[in-house]
Amino acid sequence: MDKALILLTFAGALLALIFAFVTARKVLGFSEGTEKMKKISLSIRQGANAYLKRQYKIVVVFFGVMFVILGVMAYAGLLTPYVPFAFVTGGFFSALSGFVGMKIATLANSRTANACREGLNRGLRVAFSSGSVMGFTVVGLGLLDISVWFFLLKFVFSLSNEAISSAMLTFGMGASSMALFARVGGGVFTKAADVGADLVGKVEAGIPEDDPRNPAVIADNVGDNVGDVAGMGADLYESYVGSIISASALGVAALHNLAAMALPMLLAAIGVICSILGTFLVRTKEGASQKQLLSALSRGTNFSAIVIAIVALPVVYYVLGKDNWTVYFAILAGLVAGVLIGQATEYFTSDSYKPTKKLASTSETGTATIIISGLSVGMLSTLLPIVIVAVCVLVAYYVSGGAADASMGLYGIALAAVGMLSTLGITLATDAYGPVADNAGGIAQMAGLDKEVRERTDALDSLGNTTAATGKGFAIGSAALTALALMASYIDKVNTIDGGMAKIANLNITNPTVLVGLFIGACLPFVFAALTMNSVGRAAQSVVKEVRRQFKEIKGLMEGEADADYTSCVDICTKASLREMILPTIVAVVVPIIVGIVLGCSGVVGMLAGATASGFLMAVFMSNSGGAWDNAKKYIESGVHGGKGSDNHKAAVVGDTVGDPFKDTAGPAINILIKLLSMVSIVFAALIVNFSIL
Amino acid sequence: MDKALILLTFAGALLALIFAFVTARKVLGFSEGTEKMKKISLSIRQGANAYLKRQYKIVVVFFGVMFVILGVMAYAGLLTPYVPFAFVTGGFFSALSGFVGMKIATLANSRTANACREGLNRGLRVAFSSGSVMGFTVVGLGLLDISVWFFLLKFVFSLSNEAISSAMLTFGMGASSMALFARVGGGVFTKAADVGADLVGKVEAGIPEDDPRNPAVIADNVGDNVGDVAGMGADLYESYVGSIISASALGVAALHNLAAMALPMLLAAIGVICSILGTFLVRTKEGASQKQLLSALSRGTNFSAIVIAIVALPVVYYVLGKDNWTVYFAILAGLVAGVLIGQATEYFTSDSYKPTKKLASTSETGTATIIISGLSVGMLSTLLPIVIVAVCVLVAYYVSGGAADASMGLYGIALAAVGMLSTLGITLATDAYGPVADNAGGIAQMAGLDKEVRERTDALDSLGNTTAATGKGFAIGSAALTALALMASYIDKVNTIDGGMAKIANLNITNPTVLVGLFIGACLPFVFAALTMNSVGRAAQSVVKEVRRQFKEIKGLMEGEADADYTSCVDICTKASLREMILPTIVAVVVPIIVGIVLGCSGVVGMLAGATASGFLMAVFMSNSGGAWDNAKKYIESGVHGGKGSDNHKAAVVGDTVGDPFKDTAGPAINILIKLLSMVSIVFAALIVNFSIL
Repeated sequence: MDKALILLTFAGALLALIFAFVTARKVLGFSEGTEKMKKISLSIRQGANAYLKRQYKIVVVFFGVMFVILGVMAYAGLLTPYVPFAFVTGGFFSALSGFVGMKIATLANSRTANACREGLNRGLRVAFSSGSVMGFTVVGLGLLDISVWFFLLKFVFSLSNEAISSAMLTFGMGASSMALFARVGGGVFTKAADVGADLVGKVEAGIPEDDPRNPAVIADNVGDNVGDVAGMGADLYESYVGSIISASALGVAALHNLAAMALPMLLAAIGVICSILGTFLVRTKEGASQKQLLSALSRGTNFSAIVIAIVALPVVYYVLGKDNWTVYFAILAGLVAGVLIGQATEYFTSDSYKPTKKLASTSETGTATIIISGLSVGMLSTLLPIVIVAVCVLVAYYVSGGAADASMGLYGIALAAVGMLSTLGITLATDAYGPVADNAGGIAQMAGLDKEVRERTDALDSLGNTTAATGKGFAIGSAALTALALMASYIDKVNTIDGGMAKIANLNITNPTVLVGLFIGACLPFVFAALTMNSVGRAAQSVVKEVRRQFKEIKGLMEGEADADYTSCVDICTKASLREMILPTIVAVVVPIIVGIVLGCSGVVGMLAGATASGFLMAVFMSNSGGAWDNAKKYIESGVHGGKGSDNHKAAVVGDTVGDPFKDTAGPAINILIKLLSMVSIVFAALIVNFSIL
Repeated sequence: MDKALILLTFAGALLALIFAFVTARKVLGFSEGTEKMKKISLSIRQGANAYLKRQYKIVVVFFGVMFVILGVMAYAGLLTPYVPFAFVTGGFFSALSGFVGMKIATLANSRTANACREGLNRGLRVAFSSGSVMGFTVVGLGLLDISVWFFLLKFVFSLSNEAISSAMLTFGMGASSMALFARVGGGVFTKAADVGADLVGKVEAGIPEDDPRNPAVIADNVGDNVGDVAGMGADLYESYVGSIISASALGVAALHNLAAMALPMLLAAIGVICSILGTFLVRTKEGASQKQLLSALSRGTNFSAIVIAIVALPVVYYVLGKDNWTVYFAILAGLVAGVLIGQATEYFTSDSYKPTKKLASTSETGTATIIISGLSVGMLSTLLPIVIVAVCVLVAYYVSGGAADASMGLYGIALAAVGMLSTLGITLATDAYGPVADNAGGIAQMAGLDKEVRERTDALDSLGNTTAATGKGFAIGSAALTALALMASYIDKVNTIDGGMAKIANLNITNPTVLVGLFIGACLPFVFAALTMNSVGRAAQSVVKEVRRQFKEIKGLMEGEADADYTSCVDICTKASLREMILPTIVAVVVPIIVGIVLGCSGVVGMLAGATASGFLMAVFMSNSGGAWDNAKKYIESGVHGGKGSDNHKAAVVGDTVGDPFKDTAGPAINILIKLLSMVSIVFAALIVNFSIL
C-alpha cells in the first residue's frame, strides 16, 4: 500500500497543477480591453514584478545565511543532513505559490474589468478563475513538495518514519519564513499605499478612490497584488503544508505506522478533487444581486465541503482500520469549525448584520467613537471563534481516543486542522478573487469606463470583502490547531533527543519556567503587531508626504491636465516595505532560540502555548475590527448616515484607515508567526536541549 | 509570638487610620476660597455623592444575593460558615475605602485651587495631603479587616491555619467584586463625561477644557472623583488585601506555621510606617519646575521603598529563621520590579521621552496615523513589563527555594507582590492627588481665577499624569503576581477537598482541558475590554447628544449669557454607568463557575493562567496607549507641531479621546478581573470538584 498512497498524493498534486494551468489558459483567452486598460494593467504588473524581484533578492540572502547555519548544525550532528535542503525547498515553493498567484492576478485584472463591460456573470467567471489558478497552484505545489520529499526520504534514503516526519517539518519552517517575509513585506506595501492614497486623496483632496489624479493610485493597485495576492499565496501555502506535515508527524508518534502518516496527505489529495468539482458550480445569472453572487460562491465551497465530509469516512476507515477510524470525527469537527468560524467572522464584519450597522451609526458622534466602537467590536468578536476552536479541540481530542492515549488525541487535533484546510483549493479561490476584482475596479475607474462597469466591479469587490473575512476565519482557525499540533510535535521531538526527556519532564502549568514562557509567548503577538503597524505607519507617512508634494508641485494635476508621477510612490512603497519586513522575521526566528537557551525546553512549550492563545486572539481581533470598519464605511457610502462626503463618512474613512494595517498586515502575519515559532523551536530543539541554562 | 504579630498588624492599621484622620483635619483647615468656588465645589460634591448613593443601592442587592448563595452553599457543607460574612466585610471595606477617598477629594478640590492662588508649594501640599488621606485609609482599612478577622478566626473560633487562610480569601472575593463595580461604574461615568465634554466642547464648539459654558463640565469633574478616586480606592484596597492574604495562604501551605502566615501582614504594617515617614519629605520650593515637583514626590516614595528594603531583612530573618530567610530577596525583587515597571511605563507615556514625542509627530499626517501609532506604542510597551515580571517571578521562585520545594517558590512569588505593594500608602497618595489637582484646575477655570492659578494647577495635574502611569505600573505588576499566587492557592484548595486531588492531577500544559481553559481565559480580558469600552461609547454618545442639544436649544449659552443645565449631564452619566457596570461584574463571577463545571479543575487552572497572561498584556497595552495619547496631546498643546487649535491638535484630541476608556476604564478593570476570577474559583472550588463534567 505504501507506494500507492504516495502516488495518490502525487496524482492529487499533478491534478491541481494541471487544473490551475488549464484555468490560467482560459483566463488569458479573454481580451484585455482598450489600449488605456492595457497600459494601466501593464504599469501595475511592472510595479508588482519589480517589487517581487527586489523582495526575492533580500529573501535569497536570508535563506543563504540560514542554509549555512543549518548546514553547520547538521555537520555538528544537531540536525540530519536533509534539513538545510528541505528548508530551502519549503521557502522556494512558498515563494513560487505567491509568484504564480500574483502573475495571474496582474494578468486578470484588466480582463476582469473588460469582462464586466459585457456582464456581471462574465466578470465573476474571469475573476474567480484567476482566483482558482492561485488556489490550485498553492495546493498543487504543497502536495508536490510533500510527496516528492516523502518519496525521496522513504524510498531513496530509506529513513525511518520518525526521521522523515522530523525532516519534513523543516520545510515547513522554510515555507513559514518565506510566508512571513511575503506577508509582512506585501502587507506593509499595500497598506502604506492604501493609507497614503486615502488620507490625502479621499480625505484631504476630496477626490474619489482610484482617481487617476492621485499619485498613489498605481501603488495602491500594485499593493493589492503584492500583499493580498502574493502575500496570501505564500501564507496559505505555509498553512496548508504546515497542517499536513504536523498531522503526519503526530500520526507517526501515535500509531508508528505509515498509514497514519499518509492519511493527512491522502485527505488533502481528495480535497483537491472535491474542490475542483466545486469550482464548476460557481456561476451566476446576469444582474445577480449581492446575495445571489454570494450564494454562487457558497454553493461551490459548500458542495466541496460536503463531498469531502462524505468521502473521508470510508477513506479513514480503509486506511486506519476499525480500531482508529473514529478520528474521522476529528476531521469532521475541523471542517465544521472552519465553516462556523467563517460565519462568526461574517456576522461581525458584514454590513448585513447588527455589529457593523451599529458601528456605522457611531460615526454620528465623530471619529473617536467609531474608533472606540470598532476596537470593541473586534475584541468582542474573539469570543465565538475561541469557543468554536475550544469545542473543536476537545471533540477532536476525545473522539480520537485521547482519554486513553494522549498521542491519539493530539493526532486528532492535527487532523482537525487538515480537515479545515482540505478544501483550500476552492476557499482560496473565493478569497483570492477579491483583489483581482478590486484591481479591475481601479482600472475601470482610471480608464474612464462606463459607470455601469464600475458598479459591477464594485459588486464583485464588495463580495470579495465578505469572502476574505471567511478566508481569514479559516486561516486563523487552522493556524491555531496547527500550532497546537506543532507544539505536540516539539515535545515529541525533544523526547527523542539524548537528555531531552529530563528537560521537558515538568510541563505542569505552575512550573515557573512554563509560566514565564507563557507570559513571554503571549507578549510576542503584541510586539509583532506593534512592529508591523509601526512599519505601515512609517511607510504611509512617506507616501502621504510624497502625494501632498505632488499635489502642490505638479501644476494642473488636480485639473486633470498634467499626469501624476506614479512610479515615485511605487518606489517609496517598495523600499519601505522591504526595509520593514526584515526585523519582524528575524524576531520570529531568534526569539524561540533565546527563550529556549534561557528557560529551557519547558519554557519553550509555555512560550508556544502563550503565543498560540494570544496570537489567535490578536489575529481575530485585528482582522475583525479592520473588516468591520471597512464595511461600516462601505455601508455609509451606500447612502445611510449622511452618505459619501459627509462628516460621518470622513470619520468612517479614518476608521477604515486604522483598520487597514490591522486586517491586512498585522493580523495575517500573526497567523504565520505562531507556526513559525513552533517550527523554529522544533528545528533548533537539539541545540536547546544541549545548551539551555534552566 | 502569635498574638504579638496580630497586635503589630492591628497597630499598623490604627496608625494608618490615625494618620489619615489627622491629615484630613489638616486639609479641612485650609480655606475653600471664594463663594463661586464653594458653589462649584458643592455641585461636584453633590453629584459625586448622589452617584455613590445610587451605586451602593445596586451593590447592596448584589451582595445580598451573593450572601444568600454563599449561605446556602455553607449550609450544604461546601463552604465554612464564616465565608458569607467574610465576603460581605471585604465588600464593605472596599466600598468604604473608595467613599472616604472621594469624600476628602471633593472637599480638597476647591481648597487646592485656593491654595494655588497663594503658591505652588501650598497647592501641592493640600493636594498631596488629600491623596495621603486616601492612601492611608486604604491601607489602614485593609490591615484592619485582615487583623480583626484573623484574630476572630484564630483566637475566638480557634480554626486551623489552613481554614483561616481559606476563609480570608473570601473577603478578597468580596473586595474584588466591589472593586470591579466601582472601577467599571466609575470608569464609565468619568470617561463618558470626559469624552462627551471633549468631543462637543473642544472639537466641535472650539471652547477650552473646563469652560463653564460646556454643559458636561460638572459631570466631567464629578467623574474624576467617582472614577479616578472612588474607583481607584476600591481597586487598590482589593489589590493590597489580595496580595497579603494570598501570600498568607501560600505561607501556610509552604511552611505550615503561623509565622509564615503572619509575615505578609507584618511587612504591610512596617510598610505603613515607612510610608508615613516618606510623606514628610514631599514638599517643594515656590516656582518649582515640573522636574522639581516630580523629584519632590519621588523623594518620598523612594525613601519609603529604601527604608522598607532595609528593615525587611532583619524582620524576615527574625520571623522565618535562618532556614527560610532568603525569601527576603523575593520581597526585594518585588519592590525593584514595581519601580522598574513604573519607569518603563513612564518611558512609554511621558512626553520627555522618544515614544510619546514621536507619537505626537504622527499627528502631522492626520488622525488615522496617530491612532495607529498610539496603538502600536501601547502594544510595544508590553515587552519590558513582561520581561520584568518574568525575571521577578523566576528570581522570587528560585531564591525562596522553589527548586527544592515548589510551595516555597510560590510563597516567594506571593511575597514579591506584597513587597511591591508594601509602600502603597505613599504611592497611592502620589497617585490619588492627580484627580484632586485636575478638579482644582476645573474649579479655577470655572470660577474665573487668575491665569497664574490655572498654570499652577496645570503643573500639578500634568505631574499627576506621570504619577498615575507609575501607579498603574504598580497596580498591574502586583495584580499579575497576586493572580499567580492565587492560582497556586486554588490548586492547594482543590487538593484539600475530598476527590479534588484526582481532578487536578494533570496540569500538564498539553492536557486539552488545560489548553482549552487557557484559550478561554486568554479571551476574557478581550471580551471584558470590549464590554467596558462599549459601555463608555454608549454612555458618551448620550452625553454628546445632550450637550449638542443644549448648545442648540439654550439661547445665549455660547455667549455666556445663559447657564448650562449641568445636572442633566450628571444624571445621564449616573444612569448609564450604573446600568453598564452590572454585566461585566456578573460575567467575571459567572464565567469561572461555568468553565469549572464544563472543563473541571484543570480547565480552571488553565483559564486562570490564560487570563493572567493576556490580562496583564491587555492592561499594560491599554493603559500605556491611553497615557501616551494623553501626553502627546499635552505635548502638542505646549506649542509643538502647530500647537493648540491646529489640525494636528485636533487629531491628537481624537487620540486622547480613544485613549480615555483604554486607560481609565478597561485597563484598570482588567487588573481586578484577573484576581476576581481566581477568588471566585477558590470560593466555589468545592462546588466544581463535586459537579464538574470533565
